[in-house]
Amino acid sequence: MDYERLLAERSRRVEASGIRSIFELAKSLADPIDLSIGQPDFDVPEPIKTAAQDAIAAGRNGYTLTQGIPELRDRLLAQVRRRFPGQQREVLVTSGTSGGLFLAMLALVDPGDEVITTDPYFVAYPNHVALTGGRLVLVDTYPDFRLDPEKVAAAITARTKAVVLSTPANPTGVALDAEAARGLVEVTQRRGVIVISDEIYRDFFYEGKAVSPAQYGDNVLVIEGFGKTYGMTGWRLGWAHGPARLIQEMAKLQQFTYVCAPSMVQWAGLTALDTDMSAIREAYRRKRDLMVEGLRDCYELVVPHGAFYLFPKVPGGDATAFVTEAIRQKLLLIPGKVFSRRDTHFRLSYAAPDEVLLRGIEVLRRLADRGR
Amino acid sequence: MDYERLLAERSRRVEASGIRSIFELAKSLADPIDLSIGQPDFDVPEPIKTAAQDAIAAGRNGYTLTQGIPELRDRLLAQVRRRFPGQQREVLVTSGTSGGLFLAMLALVDPGDEVITTDPYFVAYPNHVALTGGRLVLVDTYPDFRLDPEKVAAAITARTKAVVLSTPANPTGVALDAEAARGLVEVTQRRGVIVISDEIYRDFFYEGKAVSPAQYGDNVLVIEGFGKTYGMTGWRLGWAHGPARLIQEMAKLQQFTYVCAPSMVQWAGLTALDTDMSAIREAYRRKRDLMVEGLRDCYELVVPHGAFYLFPKVPGGDATAFVTEAIRQKLLLIPGKVFSRRDTHFRLSYAAPDEVLLRGIEVLRRLADRGR
Ligand SMILES: Cc1ncc(COP(=O)(O)O)c(C=O)c1O
Ligand SMILES: Cc1ncc(COP(=O)(O)O)c(C=O)c1O
Repeated sequence: MDYERLLAERSRRVEASGIRSIFELAKSLADPIDLSIGQPDFDVPEPIKTAAQDAIAAGRNGYTLTQGIPELRDRLLAQVRRRFPGQQREVLVTSGTSGGLFLAMLALVDPGDEVITTDPYFVAYPNHVALTGGRLVLVDTYPDFRLDPEKVAAAITARTKAVVLSTPANPTGVALDAEAARGLVEVTQRRGVIVISDEIYRDFFYEGKAVSPAQYGDNVLVIEGFGKTYGMTGWRLGWAHGPARLIQEMAKLQQFTYVCAPSMVQWAGLTALDTDMSAIREAYRRKRDLMVEGLRDCYELVVPHGAFYLFPKVPGGDATAFVTEAIRQKLLLIPGKVFSRRDTHFRLSYAAPDEVLLRGIEVLRRLADRGR
Repeated sequence: MDYERLLAERSRRVEASGIRSIFELAKSLADPIDLSIGQPDFDVPEPIKTAAQDAIAAGRNGYTLTQGIPELRDRLLAQVRRRFPGQQREVLVTSGTSGGLFLAMLALVDPGDEVITTDPYFVAYPNHVALTGGRLVLVDTYPDFRLDPEKVAAAITARTKAVVLSTPANPTGVALDAEAARGLVEVTQRRGVIVISDEIYRDFFYEGKAVSPAQYGDNVLVIEGFGKTYGMTGWRLGWAHGPARLIQEMAKLQQFTYVCAPSMVQWAGLTALDTDMSAIREAYRRKRDLMVEGLRDCYELVVPHGAFYLFPKVPGGDATAFVTEAIRQKLLLIPGKVFSRRDTHFRLSYAAPDEVLLRGIEVLRRLADRGR
């Protein structure tokens, strides 16, 4: 039978992640210098592990309410009420950040509707839009990766449903400042558009307190994750808060798609909320500084405010050629085209032991010399 | 801002599950006789719990390959090779059965495409089809709930992509026999249509060995679950096997939506595969017999082959009225309309302690007398 013919157009529009092919390549290398990884290099803190193990032992192994266990939802809601006083936000526990993002797209975007995102973007966004049959509209943020709300305003049409972005961002590490966040909320509110603010890296922010567009208005759906913050990306826990009507709709769809976030992980989430991760944040800030200091004299780069990525410009301008050469030297990076319509930069992740970072800097300095 | 206006048509077509509203009602009753539950009444066996706890302790907490950990995938693939010799099936580990089902729909169904299912059906199917913008086509199976392949043949059009059904079925417990399975594969193969066979209740089969349509041809995507079999519905583990091209496509989409099944649960899945659940099966067979014996003289019912549901006819014919009266008497059931275009039957789940089943039978016998 011809299965190719049966596949949906929708599915054809989705491109397999370029990151995974690097991941596959890495496995064939002995002792690679792996700066391609999108997850923390620490394990889940012991108290959180114990909480998940205890939940399993206690028989918390069946379906939960699709909205999440009330204990966790109440804690999250209290946090939201504190952080965004005067707003009527509702909370939904999701299966990872991806779960929340995808449900939001399913709830909002019909075929032909438009969704705006930044270029560069997190690789899932264009694919989420493709899966809904929507149209992706890009707002360029090169070379400093700062969002210009006026460019967003110019990109909004009668078909625009949402603007989606990450702050601090993958792959650039750049975060919205108060002015950009306020501007973004203003232009979207004026046109009846929702902002989907992916704040999975909120706890990896090195310049004081991260800004959320939700501080400036209620037309903002915030997507948060436990995975990166607590080193539990495989546990699939995230949450969303936003306008009640949208959250209700996402919960309705979650019932039939994700059903519920893993039960024992939701219980462990309660303990996670009580776990102080500031030492990790400090360690990652130091790693950022190490990388920036090691590379800034030979690469054009924007100092990231958060997350654990650097997105430097490739000396020659051809990222795929550059990354291919790096991999030949056992250094795993991701070419810019995975996150962008351009292929002029590369992403490196500094979520790695210092010793790996130092080896990476060494190879990168050698490659920069060559490029000259 | 008017959020209602922003919601997608797609999302409007999805109806919140009627089951959950019963679930909510149940919470307000003291000591209800709850026969509405769609999950086993036993906890996860100790060795499987320990395996999940050990995986957490060992730091298996990060992202896995989206296809699933190779250890589990290999085990499942070996099982598939043994059960379906000579076929080129591939395997994908999914986030519950729902995850596999929804990915299949995303991979296959474009707006306007048609998907055939039985009436009655599992409540998620119409909603999955709605989420893709597809059109649902129903094949009636009342009154004996056996599938007639000729009716499926008559329902296939040029736009038909798939036939989806559960065997043993929710809500009827009726399973495909060899003849129906072979007939289904023949008519679908002839017309280039895929069968999606939801076999989540395969291990709850009381009449020898359950038949899969996949035994009769390779145009069958089989969706299997760990949740019901091992009492771990909250753990979100399922798997799919089927034509390589379709499995690849589903894996591509999983990367951006579900990402991966929970990491520790995948490791525990290995132990689950080594766990003998035949005592549970026997206990559930006995529960089935208890219910059937208790009700068959006063309700018109089809003896289920598997799963843990009974789908008797309502004496008066109005299921919603009947269920409302039952709930007034503290007995929680689900009206047929949740699973059907008709509202003439009710679903009861016998995944409950015997003492609850006996109380349920008592109320049901009283209600049947009234109906006369
Ligand atoms: C910006 C961003 N959003 C979402 C995700 C996915 O997170 P999760 O694993 O919680 O689905 C990632 C992971 O890399 C990310 O970088
Ligand atoms: C026929 C059928 N398929 C799928 C599911 C969903 O299973 P899971 O929890 O593995 O997503 C159910 C649950 O009730 C079911 O009855």
